[in-house]
Amino acid sequence: MTSPLEEICAEVRKRVNPSESERKKVQELAKKLTEKVEKAAKENGVEAEIRVEGSVAKNTWLRDCPEIDVFMRVPTTMPREAFGNVCLKIARKATEGYKQIERFAEHPYLEAIMDKVRVNVVPCYRVKRGEWISATDRTPFHTDYVKPLLNKQMGEEVRLLKRFMKGVGVYGAEIKVGGFSGYLCELLVLNYGSFIEVVRSAGDWKERIIIDYEGHYEDRDAAENIFEEPLVMVDPVDKGRNVAAAVRKERLDEFIAVSRAFLKNPDLKFFYPPEVKALDSRELVNKIKARGSAIVLISFRGATLVPDVLWGQLYKSQRALRKLIQKHDFTVLRDNVWSDQKNLNIFIFEVENRFLPNMKRHIGPPLRKKEDCEKFLRKHVGADSTVSGPRIEEGRWVVYVKRKYTDVVNLVNEKLGDGGANVGVAEVVSKAVADSMEILVNNEVLRLYSANPDFAKFLTEYLEGKPRWLT
Amino acid sequence: MTSPLEEICAEVRKRVNPSESERKKVQELAKKLTEKVEKAAKENGVEAEIRVEGSVAKNTWLRDCPEIDVFMRVPTTMPREAFGNVCLKIARKATEGYKQIERFAEHPYLEAIMDKVRVNVVPCYRVKRGEWISATDRTPFHTDYVKPLLNKQMGEEVRLLKRFMKGVGVYGAEIKVGGFSGYLCELLVLNYGSFIEVVRSAGDWKERIIIDYEGHYEDRDAAENIFEEPLVMVDPVDKGRNVAAAVRKERLDEFIAVSRAFLKNPDLKFFYPPEVKALDSRELVNKIKARGSAIVLISFRGATLVPDVLWGQLYKSQRALRKLIQKHDFTVLRDNVWSDQKNLNIFIFEVENRFLPNMKRHIGPPLRKKEDCEKFLRKHVGADSTVSGPRIEEGRWVVYVKRKYTDVVNLVNEKLGDGGANVGVAEVVSKAVADSMEILVNNEVLRLYSANPDFAKFLTEYLEGKPRWLT
Repeated sequence: MTSPLEEICAEVRKRVNPSESERKKVQELAKKLTEKVEKAAKENGVEAEIRVEGSVAKNTWLRDCPEIDVFMRVPTTMPREAFGNVCLKIARKATEGYKQIERFAEHPYLEAIMDKVRVNVVPCYRVKRGEWISATDRTPFHTDYVKPLLNKQMGEEVRLLKRFMKGVGVYGAEIKVGGFSGYLCELLVLNYGSFIEVVRSAGDWKERIIIDYEGHYEDRDAAENIFEEPLVMVDPVDKGRNVAAAVRKERLDEFIAVSRAFLKNPDLKFFYPPEVKALDSRELVNKIKARGSAIVLISFRGATLVPDVLWGQLYKSQRALRKLIQKHDFTVLRDNVWSDQKNLNIFIFEVENRFLPNMKRHIGPPLRKKEDCEKFLRKHVGADSTVSGPRIEEGRWVVYVKRKYTDVVNLVNEKLGDGGANVGVAEVVSKAVADSMEILVNNEVLRLYSANPDFAKFLTEYLEGKPRWLT
Repeated sequence: MTSPLEEICAEVRKRVNPSESERKKVQELAKKLTEKVEKAAKENGVEAEIRVEGSVAKNTWLRDCPEIDVFMRVPTTMPREAFGNVCLKIARKATEGYKQIERFAEHPYLEAIMDKVRVNVVPCYRVKRGEWISATDRTPFHTDYVKPLLNKQMGEEVRLLKRFMKGVGVYGAEIKVGGFSGYLCELLVLNYGSFIEVVRSAGDWKERIIIDYEGHYEDRDAAENIFEEPLVMVDPVDKGRNVAAAVRKERLDEFIAVSRAFLKNPDLKFFYPPEVKALDSRELVNKIKARGSAIVLISFRGATLVPDVLWGQLYKSQRALRKLIQKHDFTVLRDNVWSDQKNLNIFIFEVENRFLPNMKRHIGPPLRKKEDCEKFLRKHVGADSTVSGPRIEEGRWVVYVKRKYTDVVNLVNEKLGDGGANVGVAEVVSKAVADSMEILVNNEVLRLYSANPDFAKFLTEYLEGKPRWLT
């Protein structure tokens, strides 16, 4: 008799493990692409070692989303600019005739769609271990490290873990997600032995987690002092690097919580969550009304950037806006940001009350600071800004002054009218905000909601306010 | 050339020092009353020593408000009940034919109005120093202590200080005020030498003030540990008693602040503040509107008690109500209480917003407490009370739940409908509240405001929100 947990895992295995023919097809495609890149490199006079890396090389790719990474390892003598330009040119040539999307991480690379499979052609330097020049130089070392350690069965465990993480929304090291990379999943499986053991361990993670699989450090303390992140996986190929550096605290917490939930009630929905069904307009209006808060959308258009840069700017701007709103005494219940990553971007700020009283308490010096008290009284007694007071409260002078912004919409309008760069809105976001900001409150959000099905799902989930897997 | 400060003091001296004929009149009245009490005591078979005490005995009374205290010192053999009843009977007999008001501190005493002068006939035990039985037993010792030390000039200094404290609202040890007693004023003048020196010193008071004029304690530390109050004046006749025990921190702070203000700008208004002119209805409505807050009056009638007991209950109830309102997340900006001390009592609670959102954040356990988390999730996932969530915020489970009271008026109405004894409203107040509570918000306050000129002045001052002397 198998346990429900085993049954679920068996079912997922069936879905994530590619068939022999699928594997063959992908491998052949990878080989074909490698040859094309080799040829194009030669034509461009670049002496490069062309290798398949990533999940295809390590045989840890998911059946429903294969992604082929082909790396060009170029000599360290190649100048940085050529490294970018020439390699991009080679990649373009190699994928000629296919749909191409130029991408950018630390340096540009090319994504293309070949026979419905996503492929990436990425340059890196052929360096000695430890002498890293570009961010991608470690990748071949990762492949070489992991490949011999992961047998077929362990590869299946990695697939389970990846699918699980995708299903619950913690997969991906990109800025938008701030979650777990594929390489991190592989190392977790290596370290704990299986998908279930990773999940079981994660459910018990309490303090900071430090994993040093290769034993680069003498003890936990030594590693603990080197790194700052909440989750540390010392890179087996580079003791100074944390493979989990991109994992934000929120994603880590979610992974811990979902691991517990899954062990308690194993279910396919963790791996394959149901589609979110957006509320209809009437339901939306009712939900918003039932909260009694003020949901403020700040939308703007433009800010065309590669995703990591866009999300970096969006998150930075979100933090700045949250601070701005809080600084003016509005109680922010929650906030979030959405983007279609092409044109439309929307900040959500939910505040307790759209309006604050005209009068606010301004706390002055304690009585024992005689001179400060004199200054305070000189400034506030009978001043235009004084509504009531000054008076003594709990040993301090206190005055009730006129509040500058009693409506959060006025505050945002005024501070962001020029883009809000001086309140900390990130550069490109700021320009787009200055050109096209709109502010919508509560029922007014219907306009954006009805016109954008993806945003509608996002706002529906926002209002639900809980992880999809939590039922 | 005299300084403005000296000029002001000279003017006040003229007003507070009784003329020779006034002094004579009061002394004769005191003598007459003493004889009447002696006679009545004898008639009742009580062997008592009858003495004039207080400001008349010490010649520190204010010209515009003489008050004669006549004490009956009875033998310590008299049982406590007779001490109350019989002495009251004697006092009534002695003041027969004059207006009489029965008063009550620790034990009953009689107030009467004779020839327009307020007189008090008070019993106490004729004890040895230190062997106190009733609270008034120390009074004759106070008189005996102070009298030989205060010459005529020092008596005038005491009068200045008392008038000053009355003018700025810090005079009186009764519960309503929580300020400085006459005896405390006398000791302050003895300690510092003059009115001006008291005020000058008070302006510099920073930490806790400990004055041990008779040097009962070895050093400051020894006295500091015995007493708890912010201002300590060790009683010269009883080292275990703080003469300033009744002085609340707020009154002390006000005295410090006003001392500084007076020294900076000496003015008659400190001693003789102008009458408060109540706002007219229209001004009142505008002022309330300009604040943008919610001013909530809770009025009730009855609760007939002697002032100290009434104010004790009112203050206790005020604290309980403040806690209740804050506990339900309303932000209390300020609160106060008013009473005509006969029938009508009014609590004022000013809150930031009358309404709160329907939804409130309820913070659950941190992730690392696994079992607590499970319990939390079991309780809140899909519960009727859940509006949004649960979700993880900063390492804790959090859920947004329905708020029970979104309107402060509903809260008060429901919690005080039965008098509110179980939320801490004091007993007699609670009964009166249950019978006659009314709640008025903002413009609705006009009804009570227009019908009660004294309350109108009080609310006007409340809105002004600063000490009268602060201009």
